[in-house]
Amino acid sequence: MRKVAPELDVRVWPDRMGDISEIEYCAAWLPPPGVVKSLPKLKVIMSLGAGVDAILKDPTLPENVPIVRVNDPDLTGRMTEYIVLHVLMHHRQQRRLDENQKNRVWDSFPTHAARALSVGIMGMGVMGRDSAEKLRDLGFRVAGWSRTRKDVPGVQSFAGESEFDAFLGRTDVLVSLLPATPDTDGIINRGNISKLSRNGPFGAPIVINAGRGRQQVAEDILAALDSGELHAATLDVFVQEPLPPDSRLWTHPKVTLTPHCAADSDPETICAYVASNIEKHRRGEPLQNLVDRARGY
Amino acid sequence: MRKVAPELDVRVWPDRMGDISEIEYCAAWLPPPGVVKSLPKLKVIMSLGAGVDAILKDPTLPENVPIVRVNDPDLTGRMTEYIVLHVLMHHRQQRRLDENQKNRVWDSFPTHAARALSVGIMGMGVMGRDSAEKLRDLGFRVAGWSRTRKDVPGVQSFAGESEFDAFLGRTDVLVSLLPATPDTDGIINRGNISKLSRNGPFGAPIVINAGRGRQQVAEDILAALDSGELHAATLDVFVQEPLPPDSRLWTHPKVTLTPHCAADSDPETICAYVASNIEKHRRGEPLQNLVDRARGY
Repeated sequence: MRKVAPELDVRVWPDRMGDISEIEYCAAWLPPPGVVKSLPKLKVIMSLGAGVDAILKDPTLPENVPIVRVNDPDLTGRMTEYIVLHVLMHHRQQRRLDENQKNRVWDSFPTHAARALSVGIMGMGVMGRDSAEKLRDLGFRVAGWSRTRKDVPGVQSFAGESEFDAFLGRTDVLVSLLPATPDTDGIINRGNISKLSRNGPFGAPIVINAGRGRQQVAEDILAALDSGELHAATLDVFVQEPLPPDSRLWTHPKVTLTPHCAADSDPETICAYVASNIEKHRRGEPLQNLVDRARGY
Repeated sequence: MRKVAPELDVRVWPDRMGDISEIEYCAAWLPPPGVVKSLPKLKVIMSLGAGVDAILKDPTLPENVPIVRVNDPDLTGRMTEYIVLHVLMHHRQQRRLDENQKNRVWDSFPTHAARALSVGIMGMGVMGRDSAEKLRDLGFRVAGWSRTRKDVPGVQSFAGESEFDAFLGRTDVLVSLLPATPDTDGIINRGNISKLSRNGPFGAPIVINAGRGRQQVAEDILAALDSGELHAATLDVFVQEPLPPDSRLWTHPKVTLTPHCAADSDPETICAYVASNIEKHRRGEPLQNLVDRARGY
């Protein structure tokens, strides 16, 4: 922070806070309960990530201080890389090719074009939209599901609870980029998995979760993989992180697991983003990417 | 062919050729020497793939019959999928993540943004251009190297022998989509590998060959991987295919190997393309994607 914005007076919790009544802006990822509340002159809370669930779960969070979240092209670009990579890994059967390489098997199995695969993205904010556009440009049939209808050229929009089942029914690869809210908790469960398309090239659907771990019911995903109801899964997020070593997810042959790294941004980029938003706010410009606490994101 | 173009009189080599003086068009991938020459009324030779090296190496090939090659959006799209997938796998260190998953290691290592990685594509035909555009859209710094200068927005163009070393010097990930010609034989050799950039995020360059196997000197790639001069390689093509089981490429931990499947098109799509070109030629329209025999593609 001092490197990207040397003009700012930066205090660090817990031991270099100085006079806390001088603190106007707070940048945090998972603030311990009570810390934010202890700052009497706080003007804005800035989340260091796209998700704010870790901040909102502080029960002592002052109600009148606005919260903004990072919405940075660097973060969005990295998430898109992750989603495109994992959709392509499944689409191109890279795990089967890996296994064949290990066994020195030169096997030409039938393949399919991108247009044969329907990708469905839950959560069509800035990240969902960017992933949808890049996947569309590669030829996949892409749809998004979100609270409100979205107008993205070439991407079918499903909105609200009433269109959820239709969205699932046309989806071969389900991608979650949802924020963590009570409504999205456990959304990737056995019931919803059973509603996904079985008409895709693999005969069973695929799940990619880069949203939040609470959205998936791990036992349901494992059972569906074992029964063949799911073809494969890529998971970047987990209810408990780091994922405990005894989780079956680590070793399941149909699971690709990454350590919550889908949209790691480098500290410098995030600091520059935060510093520029502080600068704008001090000039009297309106806050961007303001969190709606009732909505949860 | 009969399914997509039932109006055509289709003969099949070797046993269902009928009166060979009636054959006007020949669609082939690797015709045995002499077969094409034996057709007295042949008007056009149609390659069933983007590369025509297998056809051109028939020493008896009649000189006055034009050769056209497939240039189909389906084939181009599949090649782009492959290139984007493998650039992203290296960029996102998927092999390191695979290894960590195997060992149940939750490790958050430093990562970099796409803009930190310079991708250089050798061969900027229809396929090279499409791959370049998609990689550019994902944020990578992309350049192309080709015989003649190409104007692709946001993609740096290097042309001819005189600019080859400068192209290599700025390239962290070298992609070959070159046609097989005497000029491109052995182009991925120790000398050229040593000219690649060492300034990228991995400190050593990466090679992806989806052109033709003759372009790579396998022993040079293996030696460069062993010495650390190369960080990793993805190879889809080989001098001898299927790759012999005793090749070290199968088992080298830094090699990802696929069985010449980068741009597998489905037979139906290729047949429809060939049938439509026959139809156009019969209507008197000029041939598209005519091969220049002197150039070799």
